[in-house]
Amino acid sequence: MRWSQAFIPTIKEAPVDAESSSHKLMLRAGLIRRLSSGLYTYLPLCLRVIRKVEDIIRDEMTRCEAEELLMPILQPEELWEKSGRLNSKELAMLTAEDRTGRQFVLGPTHEEVITDVVGREIRSYRDLPKNFYQIQTKFRDELRPRFGLMRAKEFVMKDGYSFDVDEQSAKKTYMMMEGAYRNIFSRCGLNTQVVEADSGAMGGGMSHEFIALADMGEERIIWCRKCGYSANLETSLRRKVKVSSAEKVLDLEIIDTPGMKTIQDLTGFLGVEPSRMVKTLIYESGSEVIAVLVDGDRGVNETKLRKLTGAGELKMADEETIRKVTGSPLGFSGPVGLKGLKIIADEGVTAIANSVTGANEKDKHMKNVNIGRDYSPDIVADITFVREGDLCPECGEALEERNGIEVGQVFNLGTKYSESIGANFLDKSGQEKLCIMGCYGIGVTRTVSAIIEQNHDENGIIWPLGVSPYQVLLLPVNINDSVSRNLAERLYNQFQEKGIEVLFDDRDVRGGVKFNDADLVGIPVRITIGPEKASSGMLEIRERKTGKEVTVRADEVMSNLNKMMRGISPVGGIS
Amino acid sequence: MRWSQAFIPTIKEAPVDAESSSHKLMLRAGLIRRLSSGLYTYLPLCLRVIRKVEDIIRDEMTRCEAEELLMPILQPEELWEKSGRLNSKELAMLTAEDRTGRQFVLGPTHEEVITDVVGREIRSYRDLPKNFYQIQTKFRDELRPRFGLMRAKEFVMKDGYSFDVDEQSAKKTYMMMEGAYRNIFSRCGLNTQVVEADSGAMGGGMSHEFIALADMGEERIIWCRKCGYSANLETSLRRKVKVSSAEKVLDLEIIDTPGMKTIQDLTGFLGVEPSRMVKTLIYESGSEVIAVLVDGDRGVNETKLRKLTGAGELKMADEETIRKVTGSPLGFSGPVGLKGLKIIADEGVTAIANSVTGANEKDKHMKNVNIGRDYSPDIVADITFVREGDLCPECGEALEERNGIEVGQVFNLGTKYSESIGANFLDKSGQEKLCIMGCYGIGVTRTVSAIIEQNHDENGIIWPLGVSPYQVLLLPVNINDSVSRNLAERLYNQFQEKGIEVLFDDRDVRGGVKFNDADLVGIPVRITIGPEKASSGMLEIRERKTGKEVTVRADEVMSNLNKMMRGISPVGGIS
Repeated sequence: MRWSQAFIPTIKEAPVDAESSSHKLMLRAGLIRRLSSGLYTYLPLCLRVIRKVEDIIRDEMTRCEAEELLMPILQPEELWEKSGRLNSKELAMLTAEDRTGRQFVLGPTHEEVITDVVGREIRSYRDLPKNFYQIQTKFRDELRPRFGLMRAKEFVMKDGYSFDVDEQSAKKTYMMMEGAYRNIFSRCGLNTQVVEADSGAMGGGMSHEFIALADMGEERIIWCRKCGYSANLETSLRRKVKVSSAEKVLDLEIIDTPGMKTIQDLTGFLGVEPSRMVKTLIYESGSEVIAVLVDGDRGVNETKLRKLTGAGELKMADEETIRKVTGSPLGFSGPVGLKGLKIIADEGVTAIANSVTGANEKDKHMKNVNIGRDYSPDIVADITFVREGDLCPECGEALEERNGIEVGQVFNLGTKYSESIGANFLDKSGQEKLCIMGCYGIGVTRTVSAIIEQNHDENGIIWPLGVSPYQVLLLPVNINDSVSRNLAERLYNQFQEKGIEVLFDDRDVRGGVKFNDADLVGIPVRITIGPEKASSGMLEIRERKTGKEVTVRADEVMSNLNKMMRGISPVGGIS
Repeated sequence: MRWSQAFIPTIKEAPVDAESSSHKLMLRAGLIRRLSSGLYTYLPLCLRVIRKVEDIIRDEMTRCEAEELLMPILQPEELWEKSGRLNSKELAMLTAEDRTGRQFVLGPTHEEVITDVVGREIRSYRDLPKNFYQIQTKFRDELRPRFGLMRAKEFVMKDGYSFDVDEQSAKKTYMMMEGAYRNIFSRCGLNTQVVEADSGAMGGGMSHEFIALADMGEERIIWCRKCGYSANLETSLRRKVKVSSAEKVLDLEIIDTPGMKTIQDLTGFLGVEPSRMVKTLIYESGSEVIAVLVDGDRGVNETKLRKLTGAGELKMADEETIRKVTGSPLGFSGPVGLKGLKIIADEGVTAIANSVTGANEKDKHMKNVNIGRDYSPDIVADITFVREGDLCPECGEALEERNGIEVGQVFNLGTKYSESIGANFLDKSGQEKLCIMGCYGIGVTRTVSAIIEQNHDENGIIWPLGVSPYQVLLLPVNINDSVSRNLAERLYNQFQEKGIEVLFDDRDVRGGVKFNDADLVGIPVRITIGPEKASSGMLEIRERKTGKEVTVRADEVMSNLNKMMRGISPVGGIS
C-alpha cells in the first residue's frame, strides 16, 4: 500500500478524554475514530490488525477441529426466558423491538442460540463431540465506556461452544481449548497469565481467565512468583492462617463505645489495629439470615460466600432485620450470644486471639473475644479477598497482586443450557443424556488494545510481527530525489512479488514527519532510503522495537530483511 | 474436512414454509437453520460460501484501490436527523435504546457515518479521491421476511463509499465500481443484468442495479433483446407513442354513467376498451394539487412523477380535496374544464383520439374527448410503467419483461451527505468545495441465495467452482472396504497437501445416502471410489453440473482433476 493513497489520519495529540496508552495511540496512529461514547470505526490499519488476530484464532481453532459458523445478532427474548438469563444485569444487554412488537436481544453471547441450533440436530453419541465458534460483533450496554476498544459498547468477539458426551470428554475439550488460547495470545505477542476464575453469569463449573498483564488493566489477579499459582481476585485462595497459641487468652470484657459504628471509629477510640477486630456482617442468603465474620481489615468476598451458601441471591440485611436478629442497631453486631442464625467465619478469624467485636447492644463492644470459648461458628471457610502478602495456597510463598486486562475466558458450562434449552443424545446403551457443554471467548478488539498496551514506547506502537498491519515500512526520506524514488519503487514491487506486506511512505512531506509517523504507527521493520546512501546503493534496515539498525547494500536487502524478521520474537510485551 | 466430523445436517424434505428453490435447498443441504422469522444461523458450509464471495469482493475492491474499514452497527440518531433520513420508511430501520435513554439506529446503511468519519479528516484535494468499503451484518425491520436469506431481517452486506473532487472524477469512480461489480458477480457464477434504477432513499442522481435473473425474483426488469437496453420497472422508458391521425375526431358528448366509478365499471357499461379511456387522478404534490392523466389500462409510476414534479412528498388526494378541485365526487374526474390546478398527461394519452373521461359531475362521463381541442395539459411526459410489448426507447424493438433478484446497486450520491453531514475540501485554487460521493452495495448473503437460485437441479445445488464450499468431494462408496478406504485416505492427504479443498465423505452409511447427499450439497467435482474399480486401481471423476464422468487410474487422478476443474466455467446460471 502507498501511504499517499491510504487512509492513515495520524494526529499529534490525542483528545484529553483518552485515558490509556492504547486508547491514545490508537487515535493518534489513525487506527480508530470515535463515533459516539463506546462506539468506534475501525480504520483500515486497525482492521488489518483485527483480521490478523482473527486469522490466528481461525488457525488455532482449525487445529482443534472446531468449525466456524455465524449466528444471528438478533435473538428472540423467548430463548433467554428459557435459560433464565433475560434479566441478567451482568450481561448488560441491549434490546430492540421490531414493528410487530417482538422483542429481541442484541446477543452479548450465544449459549442459548447454539444450544437451540445444535440441540435439534444431535441425535446420538456418534454425533459428538462437536465444537463450534464464530467471530462476531457483540454489544454491551456499558454505562461508562472507557479506554477506547477496551470497554466499548460494540466490539468484536470470538465465541466458541463445545458439546461432549460426558465430563471426561468435556474436560479434554476444555484443556485443548485452554491450550489453543495460550497459543493464540502468544502468537498475538501478548504476555498473558491464565488464572482460575468464577463462572458468573455463564453458570457451570470450572473457568479460567486469560489476563494480559498491564498496569492500567481493570482486572486484579493474585500471582505466586515461586510456583506460578494464579487466580483472579474473586476466586483466589490463600494458605490457611496458623492459629497462634502464644498469646494469653484474657477475660471477656464489655466496653462502652458510644456512637462507634465502624472499624475506623473503633481503631481511633480503642487504639486497636483493625486486624485484631472481628467484623460481624448480617446477610440475607435466599430466605435465610446469616452472620458473616471476617477480619476487621478485610472485605467479604461475596462470590466465595455465594458459592459456599449455594443460594443464588445474597444481599446485606437491612437495619430492621439486623435489629430483629441481634437486638441492636447496625454497627454493634457480634458473634457472642447470637442465636437463631447460622454463623459463618472466615478462616482468618480463627487466628485472632482476644479480638474486639460488637456486643449486640447499642453503644457497646466486647474485648478479648475468643473463638471456641465465647462463640462457635457453624462454618469456618475462606470467604474474604486474598491480597498481596497472603501466602500461596500451593507453596506458601507470599502472593503478589497485579493488574491486567481480561482478553479471554473459558468455561465448563455443565448441563445448564443443554437442560434449559435442550441438547440431548442417546448414549451407547440407548439412554437419553444431556450434552456437557463448554464455552470459550476472546475479546478480539480488546486483544488489539491489550497488544498495544504491552507493546509501545513513548514514540508510538511497536507491533509484534504476527499482528502488524504491515510487516515492512519502506521510507524514502525525500521522495523527490529520483535515485531514492527509483530504488524505493523497485523495492516496493519486489516486496509485493515476494508476498511481503509493505507500506510505502511515498508522501511528499518532510523526513521528520515521516520518521515520527513511522514510530507512531509502529511497523516492526523500517527500511530507510536516504539520498546520500542511496546514491551509493545503500540503505538502512531498522527494527522498531530495539532501534537496532544495519546499513546494507540495496541488492542484499532481501536476505538481511529475512534475517531481521526471523530475529523478531513473536512475543513482545512486559514480563 | 471429514464429513463424519463436519456439521452438515442434511434433510430429505424442506419445511413447507420454504417457498423458493434456494431457500429449500439451503435448509435441505444443511447450510442454514432458522432461529426466528427472517433470522438464520449460517452453518459451516454456508459460511464457507459467504467467505468465498467476500474474498472475491475484497479482491476486486483492492484492484479499485478501495480500502476496507469497519464502522459501528449502532449509530446515534442525531446523525440521521442531520441527513433527514431518520423516519425513512423505505429503510425500515430497527432501533435500540441504551439505559441512559439514548436512541440508536441499527445501521441499515452507512452514508451518514462514513461522511462523518471521512469528512473530519479530508482537508485538501490532495486527500482525494478516497474509496472505502466494509463487509458487515445489516438489519432491516422486514414486515414479511421471505425466501430464506433473500429477504431477511439480518443479513451480510458489502457497502462502499467514494469521495471525489468533482463530477467528472466521481463518474470515473462510478464506472470503475460498476465494472468491479460486473466482475464480482461473474466470478460468483451469477448471470446478472445491469439496469438503470432510481436512487430512492439514497438521494443523488445516477444509479444502476445488478439483477440476477430468476423466475422467483421480486424485481421486474424491462429488457430489449435487440440492443440490450435494460432498466428496472420504476425507471424504464419507452419510445414515444406515435399519435395516429387516421381516426376521425368526433363531437364531444356527455353521457350518463350512474355509479360507474372505475375503468372496469365503464368497460362493462360502455363496451369501450380501457386503452380508449383517460384516467384522471388527483394528487397532492407537496403543497400543490395536480391532475394526472394516464391511459385507462396503465398505472401512474409515482417514481417518475415524483422526479418530474420535484416535490419529495406525493400522495393521492382525499375525497374532500377532489370535490373541491373538480366539483364532483371520486370516480368522475376529467380534464375538460378543470381549472386552478396543473394538468400532467402521460405521453400515451396524447395518442388516444375520442377518449372517454370523467365529466367532473356526479354520474356523468364524456365521450370523444380530444387533447388539444377539449383540454390542454400543462405538461406531457412519461409517467407510467413500461410493460412487455412497449417499444425500446433506444432501438424501437418490442421490450420484454423479466424477473430477477437485486444483488447489487451503485449510486452517484452527489453532495447530499457531504452537505448535510459535512465533507468538504480546499480545491487547487484554495476554494472550499463539497465532496461528490458515491455509494455501492452488494447483498452478500442474498448473492449466495441467488447463486443457488441460478445453479441447481431437481437433486440439489450445483456450486460454481469459485464459490463452492469445497472444490472436490471424495466419496468412497463403502468405507469398510479396506482398499477403498486406504485409497481415499491417501488421496485425502494428497489433495490437502496440494491445497485442494476437499470434503471427504468418510461416513459409514449406505452408498445411496452418500450419492443423494453429494448431489444435494453440490460440490462441483466428485471422485467416487467403488470397491470393484478400486481393487484394480481405478476411480471415477464426475462433474456435478453435467454428470459427465470419466474412469481413470488412481495415480492419474491429479492431472484429470485439474483438467476437469479448468473445464468448469466459473459462470454457470441461466442465460
